[in-house]
Amino acid sequence: MKRTLGTCYYPEHWPEDIWAEDAVRMADLGLTWVRVGEFAWSRLEPAPGQLQLDWLERAIDTLMAKGLNVVLGTPTAAPPRWMLDRHPDMLAVDDGGHPRGFGSRRHYCFSHDGYRAEAVRITRILARRFGARAAAWQVDNEYGCHDTVYSYSDAARRAFRDWLCQRYQSPDALNQAWGNVFWSMEYDSFDQIDLPNLTVAQANPAHALDFRRFSSDQVVRFNAAQVAAIRAHSNAPVSHNYMGRTLEFDHFATGERMEIAAWDSYPLGFLEDRSEAPARHKRRYARQGDPDFQAFHHDLYRAVGRDGRWWVMEQQPGPVNWAPHNPAPLAGMVRLWTWEAFAHGAECVSYFRWRQIPFSQEHYHAGLLRPDSAAAPGFAEAAQVVRELVAMPDVEQAQAPVGLVFDYAAAWAWAVQPQGQGCDYFRLIFDIYRGLRKLGLSIDILPADTRDLAGYSLVVIPGLVTIPERLMTAIAKARAQVLIGPRSGATPRNRTLPGPLPPAIPGLDVTVTRVETLRPDMPVPVDGAGAVILWREALEGTADVLDTDVAGGRVAMRSGRLTYLGGWPDPGLLRRLLLRACRDAGLPHLDLPPDIRVRQSGPTRFVFNHGPDPVAFEGRTLPPAGVAWG
Amino acid sequence: MKRTLGTCYYPEHWPEDIWAEDAVRMADLGLTWVRVGEFAWSRLEPAPGQLQLDWLERAIDTLMAKGLNVVLGTPTAAPPRWMLDRHPDMLAVDDGGHPRGFGSRRHYCFSHDGYRAEAVRITRILARRFGARAAAWQVDNEYGCHDTVYSYSDAARRAFRDWLCQRYQSPDALNQAWGNVFWSMEYDSFDQIDLPNLTVAQANPAHALDFRRFSSDQVVRFNAAQVAAIRAHSNAPVSHNYMGRTLEFDHFATGERMEIAAWDSYPLGFLEDRSEAPARHKRRYARQGDPDFQAFHHDLYRAVGRDGRWWVMEQQPGPVNWAPHNPAPLAGMVRLWTWEAFAHGAECVSYFRWRQIPFSQEHYHAGLLRPDSAAAPGFAEAAQVVRELVAMPDVEQAQAPVGLVFDYAAAWAWAVQPQGQGCDYFRLIFDIYRGLRKLGLSIDILPADTRDLAGYSLVVIPGLVTIPERLMTAIAKARAQVLIGPRSGATPRNRTLPGPLPPAIPGLDVTVTRVETLRPDMPVPVDGAGAVILWREALEGTADVLDTDVAGGRVAMRSGRLTYLGGWPDPGLLRRLLLRACRDAGLPHLDLPPDIRVRQSGPTRFVFNHGPDPVAFEGRTLPPAGVAWG
Amino acid sequence: MKRTLGTCYYPEHWPEDIWAEDAVRMADLGLTWVRVGEFAWSRLEPAPGQLQLDWLERAIDTLMAKGLNVVLGTPTAAPPRWMLDRHPDMLAVDDGGHPRGFGSRRHYCFSHDGYRAEAVRITRILARRFGARAAAWQVDNEYGCHDTVYSYSDAARRAFRDWLCQRYQSPDALNQAWGNVFWSMEYDSFDQIDLPNLTVAQANPAHALDFRRFSSDQVVRFNAAQVAAIRAHSNAPVSHNYMGRTLEFDHFATGERMEIAAWDSYPLGFLEDRSEAPARHKRRYARQGDPDFQAFHHDLYRAVGRDGRWWVMEQQPGPVNWAPHNPAPLAGMVRLWTWEAFAHGAECVSYFRWRQIPFSQEHYHAGLLRPDSAAAPGFAEAAQVVRELVAMPDVEQAQAPVGLVFDYAAAWAWAVQPQGQGCDYFRLIFDIYRGLRKLGLSIDILPADTRDLAGYSLVVIPGLVTIPERLMTAIAKARAQVLIGPRSGATPRNRTLPGPLPPAIPGLDVTVTRVETLRPDMPVPVDGAGAVILWREALEGTADVLDTDVAGGRVAMRSGRLTYLGGWPDPGLLRRLLLRACRDAGLPHLDLPPDIRVRQSGPTRFVFNHGPDPVAFEGRTLPPAGVAWG
Repeated sequence: MKRTLGTCYYPEHWPEDIWAEDAVRMADLGLTWVRVGEFAWSRLEPAPGQLQLDWLERAIDTLMAKGLNVVLGTPTAAPPRWMLDRHPDMLAVDDGGHPRGFGSRRHYCFSHDGYRAEAVRITRILARRFGARAAAWQVDNEYGCHDTVYSYSDAARRAFRDWLCQRYQSPDALNQAWGNVFWSMEYDSFDQIDLPNLTVAQANPAHALDFRRFSSDQVVRFNAAQVAAIRAHSNAPVSHNYMGRTLEFDHFATGERMEIAAWDSYPLGFLEDRSEAPARHKRRYARQGDPDFQAFHHDLYRAVGRDGRWWVMEQQPGPVNWAPHNPAPLAGMVRLWTWEAFAHGAECVSYFRWRQIPFSQEHYHAGLLRPDSAAAPGFAEAAQVVRELVAMPDVEQAQAPVGLVFDYAAAWAWAVQPQGQGCDYFRLIFDIYRGLRKLGLSIDILPADTRDLAGYSLVVIPGLVTIPERLMTAIAKARAQVLIGPRSGATPRNRTLPGPLPPAIPGLDVTVTRVETLRPDMPVPVDGAGAVILWREALEGTADVLDTDVAGGRVAMRSGRLTYLGGWPDPGLLRRLLLRACRDAGLPHLDLPPDIRVRQSGPTRFVFNHGPDPVAFEGRTLPPAGVAWG
Repeated sequence: MKRTLGTCYYPEHWPEDIWAEDAVRMADLGLTWVRVGEFAWSRLEPAPGQLQLDWLERAIDTLMAKGLNVVLGTPTAAPPRWMLDRHPDMLAVDDGGHPRGFGSRRHYCFSHDGYRAEAVRITRILARRFGARAAAWQVDNEYGCHDTVYSYSDAARRAFRDWLCQRYQSPDALNQAWGNVFWSMEYDSFDQIDLPNLTVAQANPAHALDFRRFSSDQVVRFNAAQVAAIRAHSNAPVSHNYMGRTLEFDHFATGERMEIAAWDSYPLGFLEDRSEAPARHKRRYARQGDPDFQAFHHDLYRAVGRDGRWWVMEQQPGPVNWAPHNPAPLAGMVRLWTWEAFAHGAECVSYFRWRQIPFSQEHYHAGLLRPDSAAAPGFAEAAQVVRELVAMPDVEQAQAPVGLVFDYAAAWAWAVQPQGQGCDYFRLIFDIYRGLRKLGLSIDILPADTRDLAGYSLVVIPGLVTIPERLMTAIAKARAQVLIGPRSGATPRNRTLPGPLPPAIPGLDVTVTRVETLRPDMPVPVDGAGAVILWREALEGTADVLDTDVAGGRVAMRSGRLTYLGGWPDPGLLRRLLLRACRDAGLPHLDLPPDIRVRQSGPTRFVFNHGPDPVAFEGRTLPPAGVAWG
Repeated sequence: MKRTLGTCYYPEHWPEDIWAEDAVRMADLGLTWVRVGEFAWSRLEPAPGQLQLDWLERAIDTLMAKGLNVVLGTPTAAPPRWMLDRHPDMLAVDDGGHPRGFGSRRHYCFSHDGYRAEAVRITRILARRFGARAAAWQVDNEYGCHDTVYSYSDAARRAFRDWLCQRYQSPDALNQAWGNVFWSMEYDSFDQIDLPNLTVAQANPAHALDFRRFSSDQVVRFNAAQVAAIRAHSNAPVSHNYMGRTLEFDHFATGERMEIAAWDSYPLGFLEDRSEAPARHKRRYARQGDPDFQAFHHDLYRAVGRDGRWWVMEQQPGPVNWAPHNPAPLAGMVRLWTWEAFAHGAECVSYFRWRQIPFSQEHYHAGLLRPDSAAAPGFAEAAQVVRELVAMPDVEQAQAPVGLVFDYAAAWAWAVQPQGQGCDYFRLIFDIYRGLRKLGLSIDILPADTRDLAGYSLVVIPGLVTIPERLMTAIAKARAQVLIGPRSGATPRNRTLPGPLPPAIPGLDVTVTRVETLRPDMPVPVDGAGAVILWREALEGTADVLDTDVAGGRVAMRSGRLTYLGGWPDPGLLRRLLLRACRDAGLPHLDLPPDIRVRQSGPTRFVFNHGPDPVAFEGRTLPPAGVAWG
């Protein structure tokens, strides 16, 4: 497939008389996609029912006249002010009970039926009018951004009670499932059940977990309603632009209804804002971004997209404005980020935004152009990518040799019962992902309901609190080395924990008899290499003991292809475990310098230098931000 | 007295058909006490007035049939959901004005008359039915846990106004006592007085202090009502299970009505959660708990219990789930903690809980048994204690040579006027207690209204902002060395501060003329040893100057047996002061290695190794977690 | 002008029979001013309309009988409790939506018309009765203290809408000015506009900025109403006692209506509470205060006061009670602080307070006297100043050689768009001020609307986001070296940023093409000396490049007298820039030891040792807290 570039454009922000020139410059640059419409509701419908779609049609036609394809965004992430008069109770409510007001964006509760109907209405209007023109769709914008999945509104409370009623059918069944006999928390009626905020002590984790499941379902339902409205009038593929490290709803579930998964990649902002890496790491990569964060999300969204179709819908082109610190990228990084996305299979990388805006919340957010329309530094790097794309053959994709199971429900289970500070599911998954990448391995992210592990040499299943039956079967049938744990299978039926490790994995007799969590300053060294940190299990069973720690505790146990890991590995222990698994799987690995990462894309291997210094690797020297392929 | 062991059991959490086997295993282990009933309200009264007590009777009978004695807990810390329909305004309100909702426990305001009546009603029902069976009672559970003493509800506001009216009789008297002329805060009527939250700047400390006194009185009143209901139908001793480092209500005042003071001892959880010790200390003792924290509370609750009767009602048996980090105890520590409690006079140590629960907020909280009923590591240590108890004579108690005055009202005074970060009364008291323990001294905690100091060689009175008249008299009559200060006697009538040190102590002419508080990085070294930290007073008077600091300030002054200490001592200064006091009192001390602590229990001296390494002491080597007696 | 001393006295706190003796002691000490009346509303009007002014008249007469001049404070910072019954909605509301209640002070919303009328009423009553007696007035107390400028009350909302309507005249004009097309934030009516709290994401910075402008205007209006009431009945000069580092309202705008600017100087409290200096700095100056903080505010309030008239209305005389730590001043510092104020032009330094109070929120706040009326340490230092004042000629003032432009509106612009943690306008200004002071330079603070820069050798204009036209003209006409930036002129019309540096400065062709903010651990070293920290701009243009950083970025560019600085300078870079500017301006500088500061007051040069050690300087040794002049 040919890889393409695009940009995000807000014609309503600029005088109409410069649209045509902008379109010319976009086309001249070599872009083929332009996203419009997102956030434009107050211009599309300035008052209830008073539609003004002509300007958007003119904008779209102007772009299409230059050969640009349009991604049309639904404007539902920014309902206009008049919407509040129609639905005064549509606002989400924070966990302290405060309504989250108008004046920015995402000020709606996913559970509000009235607002959902309005969102469907405007979407249907756009689909009818532009269904033939739009080459692709984006539904809403960045679900979950600004912590907007969880709402404690009256609408959410009503919907939660209904959801519980559907799930449990009777209060007794719910009491039994939640263990409400503890602390006399039993309910006589679903109407007695509140949202799990503002309790005196921690709410029942079962209560909190169901609220997270419910909240995810509300996002899925909200999204599905818009997708259906689009489908009725358009054959163009539909997408949503997800974010980095957003765990509050199940992206696989939203993704099922859409052709394309897109995400918004802000490497520098995310490093500052969404990483627990130590200061020295943040400093070293301040101008390049974390070497693995983007790749992880590329692989994730390739799994979320139908048939592996995915985009970068918004690509950071220069300094942003919303992180604790907002440095400029190292020269070359905009190109590197683009190529890395292609190497991982992106169909399109779309720069956010075309031109820096001289007002508003994104006043200081860079674009490809400066506010005075001069080219900003990212512009030339995009142009370089265009030239390089012309010169090189298509980037192909193939199944990776390594599968890493990633599951949103597991993230929720960790979140409601972390058992210790720092015990975060994403952090665990990302530690494992980084460990694999440092060995030069290419990775496929797999959802927990994967049916088939054929073709993988190595499958890693960390922290998957509940292992679905389907995956159990796949594990049993697989020919891969499978590394399971820590905490994987701890909760077979959402109840028993700690308890016996999944009895349904034939031949792996390991039982977790105790869990402890560790201060960051008390790693437990493992004989041979590395240490267990943060989370440590006590293991029993007849499986072979592979590793023990200096206190005599069993760290890893194996039967045949299956290995159970009873603790959170530090980088040293993880490397030891992965090297052993590679050896046993006959899977070759690389010894990469710290800043180098590679990605095997079908027959092509890409090499990236994420560091600020030149690095010698395999006989050549990559400059800072260097990209090589061959 | 024979020392005994017990456990906490929730029959309602388990199928009735395993109760008998549980009882057998408890008895076989050598336990003699089982606490039941706590938190079971929703099963005892599933709907208002619909009592279902038979199951509890069967459970009690099952336990008693195996010779176990039952402690019956009143279930009032966890009112069922239907209670909220009867008393919608019974919830406590946090200092931001949010009601603290249903869904965990302790969701009641101590000032709500309706709920107090309900609590008395269910207690009376239980006392009638089980008054003859119960061998002991526990009222409610862990008053103050989850910050539940202070409530800013309407019920609290009404009760506070009434309390103020009773105390002051007229607004003018209150205005005068509080100094409300300052900042025009004068009131015309008690109905104008609000609770001291949500003020623009700090509330008047007199206002805040009275709110603390009031709040403590509300706990005392709530508790007394249940005690009276039990007394009417049962002769068994009554207790409450207090917590560690809980200062918000006067335990001596609640304790007056009950025979036994119990507390819930979680050494590892408390070290992580309730200590300002530096990280290196927390790391060293992460698996053993602070070497002095448990001992302090043992001594405290011996003072709170009538005639020195006290228990550990809940003893940590393995990892808990609620602290920032939850490591497993070092092997042997469950035994050590048990013996240390006995050495300090505990009648009973009861392990929490019998079996780890496979659901709920305490899902990950260890028990003596694992969820699958196999023995957890703590089980064998309890069994070892049983064997050792059989082999050794009774542990006797005698008055200690050192008295340390501890007062809840002083804690409130420090809290409302700390004058500097870190100036916390408990921290001061605990610093002093640790300093005494490091010299091998055994200590009695004394309330501030102690009438008689006879028998003590040394009495220490730190931070006792107001010295009651009765204690003044006792000091004057005592033959002990008395070390007073810092801040002791600063507020003779809750008003004048800083001002002359208590003129009623004959012969100690010391005046505090100025108070300053110090950054943690600016200790003021004292000539000879150590330094003054945090809190420093300027002293005048004719008493002898014992110590001066390098700036020429007087640190300690003495007249005869009485010494005033005008600053917060660091460990070096404290050691110097205590060694001098011991010498003057003719009181022998020990030079203990850092991890070793001793307790003299009548004729028996116990030695404990709180460290993770073997320690040589007095010719023998104690292993980690080692206990010796002789 | 003869310099004078005073004190703050609350006769209502003390028995009337000691007033006369207090007056005698004040006069004997050599004080000439006494402030009274502040906070006394509940005694002046115990019930609505029931005035009791006689006691205040007796107090004033008692003081005047001893030759003391009275500053009469209006009591409006502490409305009595009955005011709430008359105006239940007068309370300010915090940004979480909680009313800020009665029980301390400043519990009013500046936008509440009813309360403003009450404030004018009581002021008029006092002015009528005491207009002839008062030698000076103080309006209210410490506007902005306890974060009281911003209120999110209904009254504020109404007033804000009205203010916006006046400013923009139509919603369309507002939408255009704010850029509300972004995120569909457009309004149809002013009644739809809420205050900018509780939005989901950051509010539009234009919205937030207008709220800050509005809030400042409300303070100005509140103050002006009282000033007018006084003027009608009194010819005495009027003042307000401002605070340190209070940026929330425009002091120049309030100051326009009053003769005298006063401020409350608490060097030790402010160092602990209002400084981001590192711990080692706070430790070194813990007993002396920051060496530049007081001087900065002296120079600031000299600019705020009409014709340069300014006072220290409250001077810290010993330990205070409200900072995180509250040490006692080094011996001699009360004298030093007093002399430093005189050196910078203060007419009067008034110690707060006369006698330490034995109750209330200021229980532990030192006075000149102890609670028992004995002299506290500050008393003797005041006496020493009195003796020294007699002996030395008047302290004269003259224009300083250096002007530093300081602007409240710039502070608000930085606050709503900091673009990176730590990018705070005050911090920038204070870094520059300190750099100038370390070179021994005396400084005038200049408002942004300064018309004329004549007489200055060097003018520094850092962070002035919008450069007013008037100042543009003055810069063009000036003969001084002018150092502009960073971020100065970034927003010509509050809109375009980043964009071309002010085109209206003839001859300085510099354009800012990009802004980035830097982690604190990633300074960008500059060739020659120092580094750019925190805020870094990319510069283009034809002006001469003066400095470049190691990454090749332009740091400073010059045309003739005008230099633009495109980044936040660390001390090394700042020193390099200032030394160059001094050289080019022919302005001599000093090489001061770290603890030494000087102030040229007309013909007299004062030298101050702010350190705890003796320092050799210019052939003599200054002791700690030493002051020298000549």
